[in-house]
Amino acid sequence: MSEQRVLKGKPLSPGLAWGRSFLYETIPFMQRNIKIKKEDVEKELDRLKEALKKTKESLQKLKDSVRRRLGEEKAGILEAHMLMLEDPMFVDDIKKAIEEGNSAEDAVFTATEKIKEMFETIPDPYLRERAADVKDVGSRLYRTLLGGKDIAQLDTNEPIIVVANDLAASELIAISENNVVGLVLSQGGPTSHMAIIAKSLNLPAVSGIDISLISDNCLLIVDGIRGEITINPSSDVLMQTKNNIEKLQREQEEALSLKDLPAVTPDGLKIELWGNIAHPDEASAVLSSGGSGIGLFRTEFLFMNRNTPPSEDEQFEAYRKVLDEMKPHPVVIRTLDAGGDKEIPYLNIPKEDNPFLGYRAIRIGLTEEQLLITQLKALIRSSICGNLYIMFPMISSLWEIRRAKTLIQKAASQLDDKGMRYGKLKVGIMIEIPSAAIMAEELAKEVDFFSIGTNDLTQYTLAVDRGNSKVSQWYDHLHPAVLKLIAMTSKAAKTQKIELGICGEMAGDPFALPVLLGLGFDELSMSPPAIPKIKRLVRKFQAERAKQVAQMALSMKDADEVRQYLNEVMAKP
Amino acid sequence: MSEQRVLKGKPLSPGLAWGRSFLYETIPFMQRNIKIKKEDVEKELDRLKEALKKTKESLQKLKDSVRRRLGEEKAGILEAHMLMLEDPMFVDDIKKAIEEGNSAEDAVFTATEKIKEMFETIPDPYLRERAADVKDVGSRLYRTLLGGKDIAQLDTNEPIIVVANDLAASELIAISENNVVGLVLSQGGPTSHMAIIAKSLNLPAVSGIDISLISDNCLLIVDGIRGEITINPSSDVLMQTKNNIEKLQREQEEALSLKDLPAVTPDGLKIELWGNIAHPDEASAVLSSGGSGIGLFRTEFLFMNRNTPPSEDEQFEAYRKVLDEMKPHPVVIRTLDAGGDKEIPYLNIPKEDNPFLGYRAIRIGLTEEQLLITQLKALIRSSICGNLYIMFPMISSLWEIRRAKTLIQKAASQLDDKGMRYGKLKVGIMIEIPSAAIMAEELAKEVDFFSIGTNDLTQYTLAVDRGNSKVSQWYDHLHPAVLKLIAMTSKAAKTQKIELGICGEMAGDPFALPVLLGLGFDELSMSPPAIPKIKRLVRKFQAERAKQVAQMALSMKDADEVRQYLNEVMAKP
Repeated sequence: MSEQRVLKGKPLSPGLAWGRSFLYETIPFMQRNIKIKKEDVEKELDRLKEALKKTKESLQKLKDSVRRRLGEEKAGILEAHMLMLEDPMFVDDIKKAIEEGNSAEDAVFTATEKIKEMFETIPDPYLRERAADVKDVGSRLYRTLLGGKDIAQLDTNEPIIVVANDLAASELIAISENNVVGLVLSQGGPTSHMAIIAKSLNLPAVSGIDISLISDNCLLIVDGIRGEITINPSSDVLMQTKNNIEKLQREQEEALSLKDLPAVTPDGLKIELWGNIAHPDEASAVLSSGGSGIGLFRTEFLFMNRNTPPSEDEQFEAYRKVLDEMKPHPVVIRTLDAGGDKEIPYLNIPKEDNPFLGYRAIRIGLTEEQLLITQLKALIRSSICGNLYIMFPMISSLWEIRRAKTLIQKAASQLDDKGMRYGKLKVGIMIEIPSAAIMAEELAKEVDFFSIGTNDLTQYTLAVDRGNSKVSQWYDHLHPAVLKLIAMTSKAAKTQKIELGICGEMAGDPFALPVLLGLGFDELSMSPPAIPKIKRLVRKFQAERAKQVAQMALSMKDADEVRQYLNEVMAKP
Repeated sequence: MSEQRVLKGKPLSPGLAWGRSFLYETIPFMQRNIKIKKEDVEKELDRLKEALKKTKESLQKLKDSVRRRLGEEKAGILEAHMLMLEDPMFVDDIKKAIEEGNSAEDAVFTATEKIKEMFETIPDPYLRERAADVKDVGSRLYRTLLGGKDIAQLDTNEPIIVVANDLAASELIAISENNVVGLVLSQGGPTSHMAIIAKSLNLPAVSGIDISLISDNCLLIVDGIRGEITINPSSDVLMQTKNNIEKLQREQEEALSLKDLPAVTPDGLKIELWGNIAHPDEASAVLSSGGSGIGLFRTEFLFMNRNTPPSEDEQFEAYRKVLDEMKPHPVVIRTLDAGGDKEIPYLNIPKEDNPFLGYRAIRIGLTEEQLLITQLKALIRSSICGNLYIMFPMISSLWEIRRAKTLIQKAASQLDDKGMRYGKLKVGIMIEIPSAAIMAEELAKEVDFFSIGTNDLTQYTLAVDRGNSKVSQWYDHLHPAVLKLIAMTSKAAKTQKIELGICGEMAGDPFALPVLLGLGFDELSMSPPAIPKIKRLVRKFQAERAKQVAQMALSMKDADEVRQYLNEVMAKP
């Protein structure tokens, strides 16, 4: 038996898991120019038939699992992929190419490219984007033909740990299956979209590992809390790990059992734990995780994958639904946060060198006023259905919130003119640009609440794109400079007596909890699966101690020092 | 005569000018598919000959003027363009296509594309980049054939004001001629590369103007200080403007006459005015403008347009030259600031979504240690030739400067091993990332000096790419949040008793001067032409008043408020 070996990496998604390694490689999708003999055509057609069947089966399995874990919307993409495998134009094209003497792989490649190009020349931007889906399906079929390993086809009951160089978020969704229990990567930062998905799937993950040291089908332990993996663990270590996993599961069950209890520290400080959602269907997950409100309802889904902006009525319907379901709990709805990494074709966002520093969010809203006014009208109308908070993203200066507030007035008076009713609502802003945190005192005078967007705030404060794995070692939301900006924001909110929340990844980070408790946040909003764990910790941590911990962390010199200190604190909460 | 009309825009480059409008339009470079008859071939060849001659002449004129104004290096690009017009492969290709019945325009287009594509397939990254030059030359010839207006060909002694939608920095260099006195644009931010060039050319410029209101060849006044233009000024207004221009010229002469005097306020506060340079040849311009040191010597020129990094000896030679020339004045040499918008092919910088938030500057240096150590060895060796300050860019955390300092030790000990001599030197960092300003107290304990890079600091603090004209209204280095970070940095430098300087555009902004004087800067480093004007203002402004102005600006709520206040202050300095 090979020797046990421990490799240090970076924590990407918390949790502990053991399983067999599965080395995931991308098979390049390309023309191979392999010709077949006439007598082999039948055999090749059979290969195609078999691969089509296998691919459909694995897509079906995947779809079911994605629906269960990530909801109907994401499953819908895979449904579209399955339909394409039955599209006669596509399948006949492949068959014809095989009959002309091409290998099945080449035939699939050619047919896929042809349809893809057809889509790409369509002027309609929505249809044009479907070219990527076509390529996804074609390459999946191609991979199956080449006998590429597909986790959905693996016939094993043993837990699997996927080992890969780097993974796109969509790849992670595609490969993650019920028996996948962990993830080991050589690249990827802790707040990349992929890491967020790993967290929402409860998949322990570690990055920064030299994966060439891992062979296929070996025993692995992934420790997503300490950020390390163990290759070929000894039986003692494996036993210990299994015990620890059980312990963590018990804790999780214990956490879930606290669902209906408030998040209150042993010395009586109450804090609200809310959920972040991106679609009305996710509201129920917030309630079932024990969340007492929605701290961030992203509205981009209403604007994406279409040719024109949604109407006021269509938006109203979506907002109403969530407010109604959550009533009387608060729902913070963020106005459109387009731009950055979220493209919306009909907004004519220019191609930018640095989209994260570009034309996005409120900057678009204040430029395309009608777009924002329509959204505000739908929001204001929905205020009679529940407890509405309107939140503006990417505020950098006082004039922006003042202008946004005049647009609220304008929207309300248009509703008045039509004799439409509306109720009370609160208006607030995201603090996610350093200037907003620095000017928080002035901004607080204008609004009812602040919500700190720690992902963007960290990104700008440290000048690090959180999606760029090449610089992920420079990104850390526990950097004392970020903590100081958060503390400044908190002080301003307290002075002006407005509500203070947080809706970035940091809200669900157990190590950040004592600092956030100590800085006096009224609410923490996180991805719904993180709520039980954080609630359990809140109910164990003394608020008085949290204050000391926060002050200590704020006085530190570097992110590593803070992280080490908070590791020690959380070892004995 | 048409009526006088004043349009408000944004100041882009200071100064005042009047002249005739010249509407500059880009002629799209494309295949027009125009065929010619056999009997017209000779005529078409003559047209080509004529256009080649004209283009060469205008390139020659341009080259002379660029050499005079921007130095040998930039003129070299145009020299290469002229050579291409004589390249037989290129010219014969065009002639052949004409002989085959194509119009001269189409023939030029096809020949250009062909050579361009050839360059693009070359694996060598340096040669591959030459494809852009090929296109520049081809499209210039094409433009001449189509009778496109070329300022270099205009035969007028009247001053010209160029009116355009948007201009790239390279276009500005290409169109600016001796009789071009001003610039009116619809787009472009005050710290874009183009605006920096306009300033270094002393060209008053205003952006944010609806240029469709300006007709060709009309009288225009450009006020680059107030950021407005006057179309068809009345004779009274024109007369007044001419008087004001004369007054400004007298002030400028007065400023230059102060060249050899120190920059000291009437109440005795002395400040050093230094120059920013990007090539050793520019050091003389700093001295002749009355600068007392170099506050930023960019070293990128040594690393660009080549296939491998420069050797230690080659770097030593460049550093030695500047230190020697400036002796005993200080020279702050910045280690390589690659990445961002500065591509260096052999460094294998990945294609990034947001390069300004990516793998750049010290992040590359700490990853590719050998590259940085070689530069540090050359720098340390050069310390015996003058008064050397080594400066590290893009520091975001304490560990980076600590690690950079161990690399200095390592480089020095390698020199020791070889028995090489070196002298004293100072080590400092740029403060250009918000976290560095926030942690300035800790960082100040590690270094001999700070230099604030206000361009990047503003960019990250406000989350605005300063090169993106779509969001230029969100960018302002007088934003109170930026001022507060500068004040924090200043306080830390004073507490730790280290030198404090600034090397961004703000150092040369007359409106920022009272604030910077009031915050206690030891030195301001700017583009050399700005030094006389700033020196003149320093010698008029009371340091005591500057302190009050700085405190007042710091207490303000928004950039517009600060700007308006400083406008009033500078109206009566």
